[in-house]
Amino acid sequence: MSNKTIPYKIYLEESEMPRAWYNLRADMVNKPAPLLDPVTHKPMTQEDLSGVFCDELIRQELDETNAYIEIPQEIRDFYRMYRPAPLVRAYCLEKKLQTPAKIYYKFEGNNTSGSHKLNSAIAQAYYAKKQGLKGVTTETGAGQWGTALAMACSYFDLDCKVFMVKCSYEQKPHRREVMRTYGASVTPSPSAETEVGRKIRAEFPDTNGSLGCAISEAVEMASKTDGYRYVLGSVLNQVMLHQSIIGLETMAAMDKYDIKPDVIIGCAGGGSNLGGLIAPFMGRKIKGELDCKFIAVEPVSCPSFTRGTYAYDYCDTGMICPLSKMYTMGSSFIPAATHAGGLRYHGMNSTLSQLYDDKLMEAVAVKQTEVFAAAEYFARIEGTLPAPESSHAIKVAIDEALKCKETGEEKTILFGLTGTGYFDMMSYEKFHNGVMQDYIPTDEELSAAIAKLPKIEK
Amino acid sequence: MSNKTIPYKIYLEESEMPRAWYNLRADMVNKPAPLLDPVTHKPMTQEDLSGVFCDELIRQELDETNAYIEIPQEIRDFYRMYRPAPLVRAYCLEKKLQTPAKIYYKFEGNNTSGSHKLNSAIAQAYYAKKQGLKGVTTETGAGQWGTALAMACSYFDLDCKVFMVKCSYEQKPHRREVMRTYGASVTPSPSAETEVGRKIRAEFPDTNGSLGCAISEAVEMASKTDGYRYVLGSVLNQVMLHQSIIGLETMAAMDKYDIKPDVIIGCAGGGSNLGGLIAPFMGRKIKGELDCKFIAVEPVSCPSFTRGTYAYDYCDTGMICPLSKMYTMGSSFIPAATHAGGLRYHGMNSTLSQLYDDKLMEAVAVKQTEVFAAAEYFARIEGTLPAPESSHAIKVAIDEALKCKETGEEKTILFGLTGTGYFDMMSYEKFHNGVMQDYIPTDEELSAAIAKLPKIEK
Repeated sequence: MSNKTIPYKIYLEESEMPRAWYNLRADMVNKPAPLLDPVTHKPMTQEDLSGVFCDELIRQELDETNAYIEIPQEIRDFYRMYRPAPLVRAYCLEKKLQTPAKIYYKFEGNNTSGSHKLNSAIAQAYYAKKQGLKGVTTETGAGQWGTALAMACSYFDLDCKVFMVKCSYEQKPHRREVMRTYGASVTPSPSAETEVGRKIRAEFPDTNGSLGCAISEAVEMASKTDGYRYVLGSVLNQVMLHQSIIGLETMAAMDKYDIKPDVIIGCAGGGSNLGGLIAPFMGRKIKGELDCKFIAVEPVSCPSFTRGTYAYDYCDTGMICPLSKMYTMGSSFIPAATHAGGLRYHGMNSTLSQLYDDKLMEAVAVKQTEVFAAAEYFARIEGTLPAPESSHAIKVAIDEALKCKETGEEKTILFGLTGTGYFDMMSYEKFHNGVMQDYIPTDEELSAAIAKLPKIEK
Repeated sequence: MSNKTIPYKIYLEESEMPRAWYNLRADMVNKPAPLLDPVTHKPMTQEDLSGVFCDELIRQELDETNAYIEIPQEIRDFYRMYRPAPLVRAYCLEKKLQTPAKIYYKFEGNNTSGSHKLNSAIAQAYYAKKQGLKGVTTETGAGQWGTALAMACSYFDLDCKVFMVKCSYEQKPHRREVMRTYGASVTPSPSAETEVGRKIRAEFPDTNGSLGCAISEAVEMASKTDGYRYVLGSVLNQVMLHQSIIGLETMAAMDKYDIKPDVIIGCAGGGSNLGGLIAPFMGRKIKGELDCKFIAVEPVSCPSFTRGTYAYDYCDTGMICPLSKMYTMGSSFIPAATHAGGLRYHGMNSTLSQLYDDKLMEAVAVKQTEVFAAAEYFARIEGTLPAPESSHAIKVAIDEALKCKETGEEKTILFGLTGTGYFDMMSYEKFHNGVMQDYIPTDEELSAAIAKLPKIEK
């Protein structure tokens, strides 16, 4: 450990910011399994994917050999508007917990989208623009990804069409208006604009919509509209690649002060933030340069790692997207309507799934009531009001720090604070009023969804 | 101008952060007029004010001689959790406007309260705690000040009682929940908890409340409850003193890169942000060390500087607070229900009023529709979604930059971006839907309110 005094917040200089993303897959011994065609079950090629996704993004999705991929200057220019994100030393939290542990968090909430999602949104918008496209389509649930993409498209003057799950569209009008401020068109899903939307509306006139349906609408719209492609904010390896900026900045900041993390903690939904935060540290661990524990935190209501199965499954509920080998609850599993919308995904990024299967990473599942208690505790002590998703990591970081208090170990704990909770106050209200419940799926529910997994011949 | 490349964001090192606030009054030739007792019309003394305000804060309020007042270590520790605030070079905006002007803004929105209000809230909470008080009371309209005070009181484990204007309490439940997250009790005003509240409820059972009434309730509660004092987020000179941290950080960052502002712009409601931003620059101007233009921007709906009168007036609608000599519309003037709640104040800080009267500062009034157009334009180009209040400064900064485009002048423009607009999306929605209106008070309305000003014998 160096003798330099560690400030409350470590900001890199602009000249110290990463110039390339890190592609962890290149350094992995066991590579993640390839995406398969949902019909033929054969590995997807560049050509197979090009009708739906942008060309350069497909190349990144399939690239398992290049460890570093240069960040184009235009994207670095945009990054400089809201990055570097601070690496914060949680001095106040340490003091309050009376722990000998040293706690750090990388804070990704200081941009208008309110989360790390912008790191990949700007990259995806850039490649779409470079390919000469007119626009992109996507779905959004809670709205963080839709907001990030709207901001990115606005910057590159690209059309942005967001299908927003109908109940969110109605319940979260504020999110909707942020997207409109950035010029995106926001359509409640299911809509009358797509075949799949019209079909669902005819069949279920009172439906509130679902993420699965919104994905299907966005994919249909992209594949049927000239000059449009579909983009996705999590799950894919291209997203994890872009999100490596989180880990790279964190590592550069820690290296500057000779700080070595003993434990790294992140919340896990589709895996984009966790994958991005841990990537370069995991690379060092694989090369034997770092001894560090990695913990994925998921909600007990949607426990892909801790109670799921490692198998090929559809990435979407509509079963039109490629198959990915991952820890999954089964694409037919419908997570309870908890207050961490960003973690309500049935599966997990394939790279993280492989790391977990190789026992390079651990996972724990936590209840939302204890997550909100940790969130409020953290807000009062460290000032920042966290998003419910991020608060999963806070909960486990506090638990780890309290273990150190018992054992006297001076561990260095790092966690990802992915976003702010400004648009989640109705969830906080439920917590304040004591009416928040926990949901734990039964074994029967899980078995039923697993039984519906696609059968793949080996 | 130095040859150093200017980054997108200039962050001071922790060691470069100001250790003392700057008290502009000490360097002013014409001092602001003293506060007067609302009944006797005699200058208020330390003793007169001590039943309502904290002792040390009264000393700061009355101090016209000490140019620098040390910031206590505990407050500096808290500042380090969310400060230094970045000084941003608006490269993207300059490019889009094709202006030769260099545009900078000091961004105060990167903290959970969402605005600069926290700078004074933490100071006021600290002095209350140090005096051994149990708690403080205050009022809040839009909720920025209430949120900031709730955060500050939570940090010092001080009770925080917020009277929130009833219609805001109902229309802005998100703001209310942020305050509750920080442990504040939030009461819709008028309430049954105070005499004045009960009286108003009996007289007007259907009232939506007003800021004037909420102030009266908070003052009554503080003066009648053992161990409590009343605190205020704007207008007072103590607040302007604490807010000088904005200008001091900005000046330190500019000095580092040899940048000299030609124009400094800030929105003006009660004056806390504008006063804080300009204070040290105005000090240099008074001493002949800087040639710079200062512009206060106010809404046409509440134009204290541009259409008000320089006279003694009540600080509150209830006429129980001290009299202050200021540019005012008259304390009986009720501004239209515009979307920049933070600028809906009938008067202006006394120091700023004196500077304006001495022609050391200019003022312009702008319409809210053009303010929202500027806000959306700025959000799309610079990323950050601004608060409606802050967007008044954006509008005029853009106007100044466009003037430079015409004349070819390479002026350096600095403005204050005081906060974010996350809790103002319903206002943005009205703008998007084309149903936002402008309000301009008639000459008759203004004369009627001015006629009710208190008569002070000279």
